[in-house]
Amino acid sequence: MTSSLGSTDAIRVAVSTVIFSLRSCADGDRLMLPLVRRTRDPHLDMWALPGGWLDLSENLDAAASRTLIETTALKPSHLEQLYTFGDVDRSPTRVISVVYWAMLRSDHVDAHRAVADAPENVEWFDVDALPALAFDHTSIVEYALWRLRNKVGYSTIAAGLLPDEFTLTELREVYETVLGRRLDPSNFRRLLEGAEELVATDSFRTGKHRPARLYRHEALSVQSDR
Amino acid sequence: MTSSLGSTDAIRVAVSTVIFSLRSCADGDRLMLPLVRRTRDPHLDMWALPGGWLDLSENLDAAASRTLIETTALKPSHLEQLYTFGDVDRSPTRVISVVYWAMLRSDHVDAHRAVADAPENVEWFDVDALPALAFDHTSIVEYALWRLRNKVGYSTIAAGLLPDEFTLTELREVYETVLGRRLDPSNFRRLLEGAEELVATDSFRTGKHRPARLYRHEALSVQSDR
Repeated sequence: MTSSLGSTDAIRVAVSTVIFSLRSCADGDRLMLPLVRRTRDPHLDMWALPGGWLDLSENLDAAASRTLIETTALKPSHLEQLYTFGDVDRSPTRVISVVYWAMLRSDHVDAHRAVADAPENVEWFDVDALPALAFDHTSIVEYALWRLRNKVGYSTIAAGLLPDEFTLTELREVYETVLGRRLDPSNFRRLLEGAEELVATDSFRTGKHRPARLYRHEALSVQSDR
Repeated sequence: MTSSLGSTDAIRVAVSTVIFSLRSCADGDRLMLPLVRRTRDPHLDMWALPGGWLDLSENLDAAASRTLIETTALKPSHLEQLYTFGDVDRSPTRVISVVYWAMLRSDHVDAHRAVADAPENVEWFDVDALPALAFDHTSIVEYALWRLRNKVGYSTIAAGLLPDEFTLTELREVYETVLGRRLDPSNFRRLLEGAEELVATDSFRTGKHRPARLYRHEALSVQSDR
């Protein structure tokens, strides 16, 4: 990529979002994210993360939420700031992108739509089968996956992929999908039962199997505690 | 604070840094950070975080490092991006601040100086006795402290405050200073000995007491792995 920077050009600020969701498939759950096909240069027709320009009179969080709705019609209840990407050569002009992310339950994707349907130029992709992306968006997705896979062991970030209440087995299956490998059930139970943010409820999931205690995540509200 | 935004104004991008260090005092270690007295409006003469404007042809990491050297003469080996602050009313004009942070060992502060001495308008403050800060820098420091105190339990961020090799007692004392409370030694040992990033060496600290095994942090290099 060549740079056409001149000293009189301004630095512009954009926001982008990485939305992860689990989709049930015949061979198990898959980790997916929505991409938007670009309708203008640069990178016309390439796939890119949802996003847009920051307005002069708009906070960063509001810009992330607005541009996500405008491009994908999705409206997650909570977007968290992930990282700001600002390398000089990441775009033909100088653009700083403040990137947000969120987890969505697949059965809530429809509920998180702000308007009727997703625009035609939006598609969901398996994170393991992404097309070539515009700008440095491949690096951004790789960073988000790295953070997700490193955080998932001790954080609440994966809770967005779960119902409000869940069994330890359901939690382990989410971890297995995100990490892409099987986890030992008894080790997992021992590790997670000691986690402060995991709260045992008085309810149980009943059915064909032995009743399983339901848990919820306590610390989700901490994410907005700044 | 009043806003003088006009629609033709540009959004400007700044970088700031929060540098935490432990200083030995008569009553134990204290968590300190350097501030710079402002020499121009807005907020003339108020204390502020070290920082400056992002240059058009400069990556974010480089800008953080450069402006930290220019304002404080400090050159930590590694700056990590913390968060980007962009509220509309945080400055009289529209300014997005990408904030970096680093931990410095107090006995390394001198070694991390890029030039001879710190400029006259720099002072180190106890985080529990900060002056009024310019812009939203009080909120930024509070956020950094919140992240530090929440991350310190399971992360490598506190390792920057320690020598390359350390005993579990030394590690616990750093945690106690950062968290501002005493920790139970045996609980701490049990919790930390299981941490993947904590690697037992074959060396021991000897002296008046029973020899204590030395540990090192494995995962520090992961911080730059993106």
